[in-house]
Amino acid sequence: MAHLTGELLIGGERRFGIHGEIKGVNPATGETLEPAFGGATTADVEAACALAAEAFGPYRSLPYETRAQFLESIAEHIEAIGDDLIVRTMAETGLPRPRLEGERGRTVGQLRLFAGVLRDGGFLEARIDPAMPDRKPLPRPDLRLRNVPLGPVAVFGASNFPLAFSVAGGDTASALAAGCPVIVKAHPAHPGASELVGRAIQAAVAACGLPPGVFALIHDSGYEVSQALVADPRVKAAGFTGSRRGGLALLAIAQGRPEPIPFYAEMSSINPVILLPAALKARADKIAPDFVAALTLGAGQFCTNPGLILAIDGPELDAFIEAAGKAVEAAPASVMLTPGICQAFAHGVAALTDAAEVTTVARGVPGPDGSHTGRAALFSVTAADFLANPHLHEEVFGAASLVVRCAGQAELEAVIAALEGQLTIALHMDEADHGIAGALLPALELKAGRILVNGFGTGVEVAPAMVHGGPFPSTSDGRTTSVGTLAIARFLRPVSYQNLPEALLPAELKTQNPLGVVRRVDGVMKLG
Amino acid sequence: MAHLTGELLIGGERRFGIHGEIKGVNPATGETLEPAFGGATTADVEAACALAAEAFGPYRSLPYETRAQFLESIAEHIEAIGDDLIVRTMAETGLPRPRLEGERGRTVGQLRLFAGVLRDGGFLEARIDPAMPDRKPLPRPDLRLRNVPLGPVAVFGASNFPLAFSVAGGDTASALAAGCPVIVKAHPAHPGASELVGRAIQAAVAACGLPPGVFALIHDSGYEVSQALVADPRVKAAGFTGSRRGGLALLAIAQGRPEPIPFYAEMSSINPVILLPAALKARADKIAPDFVAALTLGAGQFCTNPGLILAIDGPELDAFIEAAGKAVEAAPASVMLTPGICQAFAHGVAALTDAAEVTTVARGVPGPDGSHTGRAALFSVTAADFLANPHLHEEVFGAASLVVRCAGQAELEAVIAALEGQLTIALHMDEADHGIAGALLPALELKAGRILVNGFGTGVEVAPAMVHGGPFPSTSDGRTTSVGTLAIARFLRPVSYQNLPEALLPAELKTQNPLGVVRRVDGVMKLG
Repeated sequence: MAHLTGELLIGGERRFGIHGEIKGVNPATGETLEPAFGGATTADVEAACALAAEAFGPYRSLPYETRAQFLESIAEHIEAIGDDLIVRTMAETGLPRPRLEGERGRTVGQLRLFAGVLRDGGFLEARIDPAMPDRKPLPRPDLRLRNVPLGPVAVFGASNFPLAFSVAGGDTASALAAGCPVIVKAHPAHPGASELVGRAIQAAVAACGLPPGVFALIHDSGYEVSQALVADPRVKAAGFTGSRRGGLALLAIAQGRPEPIPFYAEMSSINPVILLPAALKARADKIAPDFVAALTLGAGQFCTNPGLILAIDGPELDAFIEAAGKAVEAAPASVMLTPGICQAFAHGVAALTDAAEVTTVARGVPGPDGSHTGRAALFSVTAADFLANPHLHEEVFGAASLVVRCAGQAELEAVIAALEGQLTIALHMDEADHGIAGALLPALELKAGRILVNGFGTGVEVAPAMVHGGPFPSTSDGRTTSVGTLAIARFLRPVSYQNLPEALLPAELKTQNPLGVVRRVDGVMKLG
Repeated sequence: MAHLTGELLIGGERRFGIHGEIKGVNPATGETLEPAFGGATTADVEAACALAAEAFGPYRSLPYETRAQFLESIAEHIEAIGDDLIVRTMAETGLPRPRLEGERGRTVGQLRLFAGVLRDGGFLEARIDPAMPDRKPLPRPDLRLRNVPLGPVAVFGASNFPLAFSVAGGDTASALAAGCPVIVKAHPAHPGASELVGRAIQAAVAACGLPPGVFALIHDSGYEVSQALVADPRVKAAGFTGSRRGGLALLAIAQGRPEPIPFYAEMSSINPVILLPAALKARADKIAPDFVAALTLGAGQFCTNPGLILAIDGPELDAFIEAAGKAVEAAPASVMLTPGICQAFAHGVAALTDAAEVTTVARGVPGPDGSHTGRAALFSVTAADFLANPHLHEEVFGAASLVVRCAGQAELEAVIAALEGQLTIALHMDEADHGIAGALLPALELKAGRILVNGFGTGVEVAPAMVHGGPFPSTSDGRTTSVGTLAIARFLRPVSYQNLPEALLPAELKTQNPLGVVRRVDGVMKLG
C-alpha cells in the first residue's frame, strides 16, 4: 500500500498541517482510517495562493501542446498509482471496486479529452476582423480576439465522485486546461484518495518542469480554510460540487469580495422523470425496474439521481408504481459515502414518511443495525399536494424518489412550471407521445441543462455536447457546464487586440494561423 | 416634430405613468423640455414583466430568419423617424448633430449586424456527438447541444450614448437577437429620444406580428422601478451601462434574489494609455494632440476616455506633457450631458486640483458662467504618489486625465499591477518598443478587455472581434462584452439533448443541418 503521510501539498513540497486533524472513516465498518491528515491554516492558504499567482504567468504562457502533455502526464501518474488508489478509495467511500475502476477510467479519460481540446484550439474562440484602411467615414482597425485564462482557481471536490469529481476531476482538468493554476480543498470524506491523486499531480508538475505553484492540495479541519480560499484576492474563480447550503455560503463570499469572482457551484437537483402516456401504457413493467436500478445505483448518490417521477394518473401509473415498488422492496441496502450523508438521507426519508399527504409505496431491504447503509424508498403524492408543499421539491440525497400523480396534461404542465432548475429532466416516450413531448419541450429546456429520452440522468457522458449544469439552484450559474469539453469556458474570458503588430500577436491570432485553429474571420467561420 | 406623449410603452399600448414625472433638460441652455414623462409604478413593472414572460415562449420559438427580419424592421423604423430623432436628442444631450447622426448609423448598423448573426447561426454553438451503440463497456448515447435564450431581459441604457447604448442600443439588440423579450428602463437624461425609439420598436413588433410583450419601455421617476425590475422573478438577466455606484446597487439586487440572475454592468474605467520610450522619443509632439482630441471628444464622456497616461519619466515625457498641455489649453469648453454630470466632473477635477501631490498641467478654455460645460483638465503625478493614493485611480467622467511619471520600467510595471480592471489599455509604440511591449502584454491582458496600439479606446468598433468589457470593476462580469456580435452570448445558456427523436430536435440540431449552421460534430468543427 502506498504510504500516506497526511501532508498538505503546496508548491511542490509537503508539510503536515497544524490546524486540527481529519481522518477518513470506512462507512462500511465505521472504522477510522489512518493516517491523520493535518488541517491547513489560513497561512497555508496564503502560501498556496501566492505560489499559484506566481505560477499563473509562466503556466498560461506555455505552448498549448505542453499544457496538453501535462494533462496526459497527470493521467499517467494516476494510472501509475495502481490498485492502491482503488483499495484506499473503496475503504474511504464504501463504493464498490468496479464502480471505482470505472471512475478512474473516466478521470484519466477526462484529462486526455482536455488534452485534445488544447490541441484543437477551438476553446480559444479566435476571431479576426481584418483592417479596412479605406473604409468611410473612418477606417476600420485590425481587431483580433481570443480567450485568456482567468487566473488561479479554487476547487472543492465532491464526496460522491472521489476520483472523477475530486482532486483531479472535471473542475481541475478544465481549469488546468484553461491555463489556470488550481488549489484543491480536499473533501474530508476521502482524504487518502485525495493525497494519492494530489501527489500524482504534483509529480506530473515536476516531471513537466512546470512552476510548482500550478497545483496545491490542502485539507480543511473546519470551514475557515475554504472560506479564506474563496476570499483570497489572488483566486479568480472557483468550482464546487456539493450541498446547496455549502454552495450558497461560499457563493456569498465570492460575490461579496471587493473583486467578485465567478463561483461555479453544482448544488442540488431532483432530476424529474416524466412518463408519457403511450410509453407508460406500453411498457410500465419495463421502465419500472430500469428506474429502480437508476435510483439505487451507487446508493442513489448521484447528482443526477431520479428523485421525482411525473405522470398522468390512471391504471397505467398504478401498474408502474406497483412494479417499481416491488423492485424497491427487493433492493438491498447500500453503504453510503459517510455516516453524515447516511443520517441526512434517513432524516429526509423520515420527513417524507411522516408527511400526511405522502404515501409510502415501498422501502428497500433494511441494512444491518448500526450500519451506514441507505434503504431505498419510493413515495407517491398527488400533484395538488406536491404543488402546495415546497418541501416536497427538495432533494433527498440518496435512493429516494417521489411519484407525483397528475390529473391530466394541464396539471403535469403546472407541476413542470413549479419546478426549480434541474441538472436533468428525462422523458419516457413512444412515438405516439411525440405530440405531448413537443408541447412540453419548450418548458423543459428552460428548467434543465440536459433533456434525455428513454433513459435516466445517472450516466453523464464526458463529451463535447454534454451539459452538466442547469438553472439555479441546480447550479449557481446556468450558463455553464461542469462536465464535458465546454467546461473549459468557465475559466476563460475574451480579450480583443487592436492593431497589435504581428510579431506581438499570440500564435493563435497570427495571420498565417501556425496553430491551425478554427477562427472566425470577418465574421465567417474558417477551419484551421 | 414628432408628437411626444410622455407615455409608457407596455404590451403594444401606451399609457401615461402616474408615479411622478420626468422632464428632459437641454444642458446647453438649462431649459426644461416638454412634455412631461410619467413615471411607472411597480404595477407597471409587474404588467411589463408578465407580458414579457408570456411573449418569451412564442418569440424564442420563431424561425431565426423571422427574428432577423424583426431586427431589420426596428432599424427601418428608427430611420423612418427622420431628423426629429436627431433634433430631439441634440436638445436633450447637448451632443452635436454629426455625432448623433453617426450614432444613429451605428445603432441601426448594430441591429442589422445581429440580423446577420441570426442568419449565420454560429451563436447557437451547435454540437453533435453521434451515438456509439457498440461502445464498450457502455454504449454512448446521441448527444446534441445548442444555446437557448435566458428569458426576459431588463435593459438600463446609458446617458452618454442616447441612441447606440440606450433603448435600441447594444444590450437591446443582443438580447432581442438572443430570443429574449426586453424591458427598457429609459434613461432620464433623454426621455424624448427614448420615446421616439421605443415607439419605433413597438411599431416593428406590430409590423412583424410578434407578441406585444416582446418590448416595453418604462420611465422611472426615482429608483424604485429599476429595483423592482431587477428583482422581478420573470426577469432572467439585465444589462446596465452607467456609474459604478448604480451598477453595484442593482448587481446586489440581482445576486440577492431567491433566484440570482446574471447582471451585466458596464461601470467605470480610466483606460490607461502607455507611452513606450521609442514612440515617446520619436513623436511626443504627434501623440499629444491626438491624445487631447480623444480626451475631449464628446466632452470626454466616453466609457473609453483616456483618463490615465503612463510613461517613464524624462525629457521626452516633459515634451509630451508640454505639448498636451498646450492642446488642452486650446480646447473649448463643451456642453456636458446633464447638469448632474457636469457638477460631478467639476467635483472630480477640483479634487485632483486640490490634491497636494498632483500638479495641474493645464486647463481648457472655460465655458460661460452658469453653462453646463466641462473644461478640460490635465494633471500629473509621480508613480509613487499614484501608488499611494487609491483615489487617484478613480474615474473622473469627462475630459480629465492624469499623467503618471514612472521612474523606470519596474515602476511602470508596479503601476500596471496596481490598476483596477479596465475596458481598454492603449500602447503607443514603435518597433524599438516591441521588447518592452511584449514584456508588458501578459499583465495588460489580465487588466483589460481590449488592448490597442497607437490609438485611443474611444472608437469602439461594432464587430465580431470586439470586446467592450473587462475585469471588475470596469464591468461586473469580465467574461463578456457589451459591444460586438459576441454580446449575444450574455443572454444564452447551453442545453444538451440526449437521444431526442429526430422529429423533436430543433432545426439547428437535425442531422441534415437544414439551417446550414456551423456545428462541432464528434468534437470536430464542421462548416454548415
